[in-house]
Amino acid sequence: MARPLHLTAFMRPVSLHTGAWRYPGAYPDANFNFGHIKSFIQKLEAAKFDAFFMADHLAVLNMPVEALKRSHTVTSFEPFTLLSALAAVTEKIGLAATASTTFDEPYHVARRFASLDHISNGRAAWNIVTTSNPDSARNFGLDEHVEHGERYKRAREFYDVVTGLWDSFADDAFIRDQQSGIFFDPEKMHVLDHKGEELSVRGPLNIARPVQGWPVIVQAGQSEPGRQLAAETAELVFCSPRDLSAAKALYGDIKGRMVAASRNPDHLKILPAAFIVVGDTIEEAKAKRAKLDSLVHYDSAIASLSIALGYDASGFDPDGPLPDIPETNASKSGRAQVLKLAEQEKLTVRQLAQRYGGYSGLAFVGTPQTIADEMQTWLSEEASDGFTVVFPYLPQGLDDVTQRLIPELQRRSIFRTDYEGSTLRDHLGLPRPANRFFA
Amino acid sequence: MARPLHLTAFMRPVSLHTGAWRYPGAYPDANFNFGHIKSFIQKLEAAKFDAFFMADHLAVLNMPVEALKRSHTVTSFEPFTLLSALAAVTEKIGLAATASTTFDEPYHVARRFASLDHISNGRAAWNIVTTSNPDSARNFGLDEHVEHGERYKRAREFYDVVTGLWDSFADDAFIRDQQSGIFFDPEKMHVLDHKGEELSVRGPLNIARPVQGWPVIVQAGQSEPGRQLAAETAELVFCSPRDLSAAKALYGDIKGRMVAASRNPDHLKILPAAFIVVGDTIEEAKAKRAKLDSLVHYDSAIASLSIALGYDASGFDPDGPLPDIPETNASKSGRAQVLKLAEQEKLTVRQLAQRYGGYSGLAFVGTPQTIADEMQTWLSEEASDGFTVVFPYLPQGLDDVTQRLIPELQRRSIFRTDYEGSTLRDHLGLPRPANRFFA
Ligand SMILES: Cc1cc2nc3c(=O)[nH]c(=O)nc-3n(C[C@H](O)[C@H](O)[C@H](O)COP(=O)(O)O)c2cc1C
Ligand SMILES: Cc1cc2nc3c(=O)[nH]c(=O)nc-3n(C[C@H](O)[C@H](O)[C@H](O)COP(=O)(O)O)c2cc1C
Repeated sequence: MARPLHLTAFMRPVSLHTGAWRYPGAYPDANFNFGHIKSFIQKLEAAKFDAFFMADHLAVLNMPVEALKRSHTVTSFEPFTLLSALAAVTEKIGLAATASTTFDEPYHVARRFASLDHISNGRAAWNIVTTSNPDSARNFGLDEHVEHGERYKRAREFYDVVTGLWDSFADDAFIRDQQSGIFFDPEKMHVLDHKGEELSVRGPLNIARPVQGWPVIVQAGQSEPGRQLAAETAELVFCSPRDLSAAKALYGDIKGRMVAASRNPDHLKILPAAFIVVGDTIEEAKAKRAKLDSLVHYDSAIASLSIALGYDASGFDPDGPLPDIPETNASKSGRAQVLKLAEQEKLTVRQLAQRYGGYSGLAFVGTPQTIADEMQTWLSEEASDGFTVVFPYLPQGLDDVTQRLIPELQRRSIFRTDYEGSTLRDHLGLPRPANRFFA
Repeated sequence: MARPLHLTAFMRPVSLHTGAWRYPGAYPDANFNFGHIKSFIQKLEAAKFDAFFMADHLAVLNMPVEALKRSHTVTSFEPFTLLSALAAVTEKIGLAATASTTFDEPYHVARRFASLDHISNGRAAWNIVTTSNPDSARNFGLDEHVEHGERYKRAREFYDVVTGLWDSFADDAFIRDQQSGIFFDPEKMHVLDHKGEELSVRGPLNIARPVQGWPVIVQAGQSEPGRQLAAETAELVFCSPRDLSAAKALYGDIKGRMVAASRNPDHLKILPAAFIVVGDTIEEAKAKRAKLDSLVHYDSAIASLSIALGYDASGFDPDGPLPDIPETNASKSGRAQVLKLAEQEKLTVRQLAQRYGGYSGLAFVGTPQTIADEMQTWLSEEASDGFTVVFPYLPQGLDDVTQRLIPELQRRSIFRTDYEGSTLRDHLGLPRPANRFFA
């Protein structure tokens, strides 16, 4: 196996496509039914996925009520409760959760991840986010969202405190000698006593050092400070580049920043989000996607298209081609993208709108062979170390990936046929961090 | 079945006795081994316990390092991660967690309990605490603990916000109509928009109303404002009266306050903590307890006895009887208690000290018959509605309760032989609260 591919599953919501829950045969409650989600993760584990990823938001998503009432995201499980329950019914697959540095406390975050890491025997990962949804602030006593730079400043210090708390005990602190009655060696307990600009936290944490030393650190911020935080701290990056060339630029940028920060670039894996639709033929895969897009409500769809175009599209004939539209000052790259898509795929206004209102990010739509080809290109061009898979609808779209795409990737020896070890660090080929207070 | 007995298991730490982990045959890591804890809860469920209770602390317990290094509490699981994992491997038993109103946010607390309630299919309970350990404050950016009255003021408002957030959606809000594409009815979503003296929280919660409407509300505060909070809000009370008469006074007080607050006193169950040691004979049970007490280290033990006496006992002959000691101003009731115990059980200074350093609260030590007799007395005298069982050591002390005491209670028809229903409210005979915003 040359450069191995890594795959995580984006699972909150279980599909990012807004029409997913309406697809014929899909479970309409897939996003909020523990039994279903348990069956999904067990399939992902059987297919040897690196990890199951629970994104998280601290408010109902801020969208107009007309769109919201059609969204299956409005009720979702909280990540720690769900991932802990899933830890009890799986053995090897990693469990990644988002936790906010803006609206939570480092002592709580450190404890929960440490506890999840112990319960799962070394499978936890923390997606550090500063929370972009401004509505969240109002659920936490603020009138306005915390300013972007300020959020990232706190995030950086928050990371130092959390990792410091994880190091509260040496790995061999707990003796549990029934004869002498000594439960642990107090010389192997460190009181952090952090007093920084943003945070003041004494410690020690009231839980043993995590099985992985530290749970795997994930980052998904795309801005300048987001990339810098990733380069300094992350071991896994979730991102959403639009195409291969954007991905290569991002990949090079982050790995370059790592070298500048004296880190080994192999110790961070970059996994762009990819929406995957598998068919027996390319035409069949495209037809599945077209069917799925057709389930997006036109009103929300046309609003998304208007945003992408920077031009009100609501007056266009839905069933005609995209008309010529005058130049505006709105985002040129967004508009160019729409025009290219309209031309390439010969989509009507309705179809274009539904594409933007459904899921408009990077997509691999084709046969197991064509998708595996694309993935290999991304790997060999150093555009990514794998992907964060976004499923189109469930269970069928997930089964298509696990039963059809994965075997093809395995046949080509670019994806594992068995887990490398028992922890998420083992799967990702990441070192176990040393304890900064104990040799 | 006349007045039924309710039993919860105090499980963090898995035993409150400081010598528990050293008992011959006990698991020294019982408090921090997921496999063991899973086996404990499955035994408790087979025995039809109402609930498994995770107490919680937001700091390493504040004790001198000489005592701390002998304590199995220093590393424990975080409640939500543990209870969620246990939810996946049990079916009926209730899952009660402590969450602090002083050091957490209502949006987080409401979400986690709602999520646990959904994952467990209606088995969650929230023990509202204001957090008594002053060291906790220093893990959350404060130099000193928040003042007692202020803590209870925030707790009362916090309860209003959390229950209001749980009511964000009507029970029938989620339609999930694949044909029309309507996922939920926005008329059945309520935006709380709470702006109070202590808290400002907009809502709505991003999760459906809990299966139980609201998870069961628990309270364990013993002070005047603690009792009042219980009378106004709680459905279950954990407490630690020293004996039957103290329990009767507390029981009458809280139920009286409920009536004054226009609540039905049957809608709150009071469960004093009881340490239970079962033997074939009373002598055997006492010998087990003496053996367990003997495993408490003398240095920590004598400190506990000195506190109880209000007099430095470190100069006494450990193997002699308690000498006469001069009157002091320290707590008279504590001292009277020690003197009575010394006389009744004819304990040496060492044994007395180890009793205080081990577990000095209410204890039932005897045969299944004598313990069942005592429990019946407590019920019939209206001193309690059952007990919060504290195990002496594990697994044996837990097995003694589930295999020997429970069948005796069932034979007398004061304890269930099967669960009443599927939710914790069903087991406790508590009504499901109406949604305050939707009929
Ligand atoms: C794959 C992926 C997953 C993300 N998951 C979350 C999430 O769970 N919660 C969240 O608040 N933001 C999430 N984000 C958003 C980022 O954290 C970040 O806010 C966004 O990319 C904007 O970048 P910036 O914060 O650096 O400005 C995610 C982004 C990507 C690409
Ligand atoms: C059975 C029982 C369980 C308790 N569990 C907790 C707990 O998990 N966390 C906590 O901080 N305090 C806990 N307490 C302490 C109470 O919440 C409360 O702080 C204490 O009884 C002092 O009362 P007050 O807060 O009204 O002054 C518990 C008390 C009892 C009797």
